Amino acid sequence: MSTPKTPAAARPISRFPVPALQDLPDDIRGRILAVQEKTGFVPNVFLALAHRPDEWRAFVAYHDALLAREMRSPDNPHGCGLTKGEREMIIVATSAANHCLYCVVAHGAILRIVEKAPLLADQLAVNPLKADITPRQRAMLAFALKVANDSAALVDADYEALRRQDFSDEDIWDIGAIAAFFAMSNRLANLTAMRPNDEFYLMGRVPKAKG
Amino acid sequence: MSTPKTPAAARPISRFPVPALQDLPDDIRGRILAVQEKTGFVPNVFLALAHRPDEWRAFVAYHDALLAREMRSPDNPHGCGLTKGEREMIIVATSAANHCLYCVVAHGAILRIVEKAPLLADQLAVNPLKADITPRQRAMLAFALKVANDSAALVDADYEALRRQDFSDEDIWDIGAIAAFFAMSNRLANLTAMRPNDEFYLMGRVPKAKG
Amino acid sequence: MSTPKTPAAARPISRFPVPALQDLPDDIRGRILAVQEKTGFVPNVFLALAHRPDEWRAFVAYHDALLAREMRSPDNPHGCGLTKGEREMIIVATSAANHCLYCVVAHGAILRIVEKAPLLADQLAVNPLKADITPRQRAMLAFALKVANDSAALVDADYEALRRQDFSDEDIWDIGAIAAFFAMSNRLANLTAMRPNDEFYLMGRVPKAKG
Amino acid sequence: MSTPKTPAAARPISRFPVPALQDLPDDIRGRILAVQEKTGFVPNVFLALAHRPDEWRAFVAYHDALLAREMRSPDNPHGCGLTKGEREMIIVATSAANHCLYCVVAHGAILRIVEKAPLLADQLAVNPLKADITPRQRAMLAFALKVANDSAALVDADYEALRRQDFSDEDIWDIGAIAAFFAMSNRLANLTAMRPNDEFYLMGRVPKAKG
Amino acid sequence: MSTPKTPAAARPISRFPVPALQDLPDDIRGRILAVQEKTGFVPNVFLALAHRPDEWRAFVAYHDALLAREMRSPDNPHGCGLTKGEREMIIVATSAANHCLYCVVAHGAILRIVEKAPLLADQLAVNPLKADITPRQRAMLAFALKVANDSAALVDADYEALRRQDFSDEDIWDIGAIAAFFAMSNRLANLTAMRPNDEFYLMGRVPKAKG
Amino acid sequence: MSTPKTPAAARPISRFPVPALQDLPDDIRGRILAVQEKTGFVPNVFLALAHRPDEWRAFVAYHDALLAREMRSPDNPHGCGLTKGEREMIIVATSAANHCLYCVVAHGAILRIVEKAPLLADQLAVNPLKADITPRQRAMLAFALKVANDSAALVDADYEALRRQDFSDEDIWDIGAIAAFFAMSNRLANLTAMRPNDEFYLMGRVPKAKG
Repeated sequence: MSTPKTPAAARPISRFPVPALQDLPDDIRGRILAVQEKTGFVPNVFLALAHRPDEWRAFVAYHDALLAREMRSPDNPHGCGLTKGEREMIIVATSAANHCLYCVVAHGAILRIVEKAPLLADQLAVNPLKADITPRQRAMLAFALKVANDSAALVDADYEALRRQDFSDEDIWDIGAIAAFFAMSNRLANLTAMRPNDEFYLMGRVPKAKG
Repeated sequence: MSTPKTPAAARPISRFPVPALQDLPDDIRGRILAVQEKTGFVPNVFLALAHRPDEWRAFVAYHDALLAREMRSPDNPHGCGLTKGEREMIIVATSAANHCLYCVVAHGAILRIVEKAPLLADQLAVNPLKADITPRQRAMLAFALKVANDSAALVDADYEALRRQDFSDEDIWDIGAIAAFFAMSNRLANLTAMRPNDEFYLMGRVPKAKG
Repeated sequence: MSTPKTPAAARPISRFPVPALQDLPDDIRGRILAVQEKTGFVPNVFLALAHRPDEWRAFVAYHDALLAREMRSPDNPHGCGLTKGEREMIIVATSAANHCLYCVVAHGAILRIVEKAPLLADQLAVNPLKADITPRQRAMLAFALKVANDSAALVDADYEALRRQDFSDEDIWDIGAIAAFFAMSNRLANLTAMRPNDEFYLMGRVPKAKG
Repeated sequence: MSTPKTPAAARPISRFPVPALQDLPDDIRGRILAVQEKTGFVPNVFLALAHRPDEWRAFVAYHDALLAREMRSPDNPHGCGLTKGEREMIIVATSAANHCLYCVVAHGAILRIVEKAPLLADQLAVNPLKADITPRQRAMLAFALKVANDSAALVDADYEALRRQDFSDEDIWDIGAIAAFFAMSNRLANLTAMRPNDEFYLMGRVPKAKG
Repeated sequence: MSTPKTPAAARPISRFPVPALQDLPDDIRGRILAVQEKTGFVPNVFLALAHRPDEWRAFVAYHDALLAREMRSPDNPHGCGLTKGEREMIIVATSAANHCLYCVVAHGAILRIVEKAPLLADQLAVNPLKADITPRQRAMLAFALKVANDSAALVDADYEALRRQDFSDEDIWDIGAIAAFFAMSNRLANLTAMRPNDEFYLMGRVPKAKG
Repeated sequence: MSTPKTPAAARPISRFPVPALQDLPDDIRGRILAVQEKTGFVPNVFLALAHRPDEWRAFVAYHDALLAREMRSPDNPHGCGLTKGEREMIIVATSAANHCLYCVVAHGAILRIVEKAPLLADQLAVNPLKADITPRQRAMLAFALKVANDSAALVDADYEALRRQDFSDEDIWDIGAIAAFFAMSNRLANLTAMRPNDEFYLMGRVPKAKG
């Protein structure tokens, strides 16, 4: 009657076969090792999706095109107008709307770290209307959630609401495209029953001790 | 464009007036001080609802009648057939279905502590189908979520599904009544925009250092 | 093929055991006898919930805290700003949204009597937009129904709509708290398949003959 | 703040112009007078829809084709397999699903009279699962409600469930066609904000005194 | 594994018995032959519904009352204010909302022909917000879709939105009544699994060669 | 009051800037020219998404990884187990669920051509339950639609239903991944209000004349 005591390590991270790191093509393994070096562990999404190398490559390329872009600046006029934190807010809020455990937990961790905001991810996951964000960010999430939940109903007024908050059309593309990309990612994670690494749950919650 | 930096302490915990501890009737203040001594802080629900003392008393009495009962045992044949952890699972899962930030965060903390399961509350809040629980607990939550979401559609088959998992009729009452009580609590928290104490977010996530 | 002819008296009033009046604790029996004297019969909710005396006491205390309060007046500045009829309107409309047979039928009877309005309960139960009520009452029900159906989506504009109709913040608490309390009551009635007393259906429909 | 005291007679029965009886074409006026003679008053649907005589004629012809048919019998092998009461059950349950005040109130009255069942209409209007009907009638209403709510999802299994309850294919047509006809009627009543006659609310609730 | 190669002619056009043309009553057969002469084939709806002659007659009379009316003009002041194309737009859009294959395909064909607009029916069937229509027609469809999907929620503002687009009250009746009539038709077609004639799919898509 | 007569060529194909073919990077222009040569025109998706070259490349790579794979065969054991037609069925059915005009129209054309089935796309777009497909294909679409509409609710039984129809786990990945990819594509098309080329509407409807 108690909760199962299977050690987490013994629980599958996908409903589908998960390749061993050493069996992966060089480019994929290389990227994964780089992530591992930076993060300290291999996020399960990299292994679970590597079951299909071509899809993995396209997925990671798409991810990078949206999320690895530097911010817009005088030196980088084609950069992204959204901060890294704002992009993660979109991901957490829309992934929660899709009940995607992997993306809420993994990107919740990133959001906490990037924003140095240990409460924000849980707030966004449960109810974005109750999160400690600005009215401008609230407008951004309202649009992103409409893309996630009912994109067919988007009308001029939705775009104008963002422009009134000084979002440019390029920003609107980013807001919508990130919500659209995670509409796919959430479904892939739900399809594979992708399990978040245990490490993500605690990341960004405890202030780092000073040196 | 950055997230607001108002210190959490400065943010209101309710849309309605919140009484000061010293202004409360003795019985209410006494109970609150007892909770404070045990928990280390005063959970905001006790202050926010104390705006209406009579409703506070009924709320706390109802809470205790459902959640403070000891478990059933040979010495306590009228005890509750659900473990404290299972009762908290019902609360977290149904409160997430109602997008109640206060209850998910506060009872998520209790669940983590009671079950010594630092991942479980987040799993239940995002997608109960992906939580590390037993099939019996999964049946319990399916029933609780039907009470929360669509109680009018309950039919014999729903009760039989619980009996097949060895839940007694008294257990079924408890599952349903806890879901019903939090249907009210969640709405009160959403009505008042009740803010969870910051302390709850981290509780039960970090293993206690041994003495 | 005809409808069943089981006499109503033979039909169970709850899926769970129903205690006999004489087996109940004195305080509970006393209150029930007082209701019986006033109403002429014992409403089934008092018997069905008495299966759990502690929950019964909390339920009745909560009920009284919200619904037994006298109206606000110069002599009673902390009274309730809603008329008894308005409180019953909230109950009937939200209970209908939750498809709760017991609460619609029992509180429909009370509403008809209190408001001397034999048509009103049926109108509210089928479609509140078609009921013979004032625009102010319509705003009250719109808020109550949002608490019942989608409390997580409450935003400032919902509160402002009530203030524009001269509802005070205390009134808003009452509207929301009554809707929240019946979110619980409706679920308890649906959980137990609580059967309304046959007497309720006709009460308040026929004008009393003059003496 | 009190409920409006406009006498019911002063309240409009339609958002659209309502013709006077004497201005109607002979055939329409004749039918209406016949109904008045039988019922004691003119049900508002006959007047509200008479704004469009050709549509009125088609509406009444359709109504009669479905609802005025005698029951199947050895002498009437092409009669309807559903009792008059069962046809009214379908109307009340699906009209409640469509929140159509006129049809729930008017056909609720007919149902109470035909079935000599003063409680049944209210039960069906609030929650068909709680109504005092047979399992066979419950299956009939499940099918009718699927036609009303989600006819595109009808599959073989829905038809088989009725056949298992000894409904013939002709009966299934009747169940579905009545639900379909009231899908139209409910929308016409909601479009016109058709007001039920006050008389309907009480009909069939009080046992007739014996002569 | 390939799609079934049953010739279309061999596939049933209804779940219910379909009468042979020669077995039908004279009036019904006469009308059907007239349609056949004009259209070149017998639309299946005429045969499938003829299983019930009285219902067929009422259905066709209702159809004609709404859709066969000539347009309003100085010579015909009681004509219909909607063009034939606009009436078909309402039918296609609401039938798509009801996922009615027969009505979308058959009336899509009529719409393409009447409007000489080969793309319009597919646009309306998939997403009316993306169709090449005027803002006034968009308002018309928004009202019609509310009648189809949620007629109980119609409020004054919905009627005013149409009046602002210069729709008269008679026009509003037509918009609503057509949506209501197809609420019934769609359910009858779904109930019978009515199969559209293959001919409809291509009609109005290819410009006619000049003589 | 008539439908707008703006020539289609004058209507924007995206809410966002659309690059001219000659301004695009070589690799993108090359691929587009290849498609143009094969199809006879440039599908608008290639131009509308090229506003963001990096996202274009990832999108096309992902598309090819899922849809350009050859079928599984003795010589190609890692090929795709779904026919090209089946993959297009998934696209049309899920895109219709998302009300994505571009994808329904463009992939509807491909489906008609690949399957030599001029009616199939319209059937799937309006109601997949009424399409002329095999029971195995029906199970495939039920799973794909669950991925599209409610992926969080996927449970073991959904996978088992596919295995009973002899779909392998690799096939299940393909069904789910295609539905997931179009969850993204549909949202991108709705975000940009992407307009389908007029050519698509007629493709595959008219049998080719023999040589």
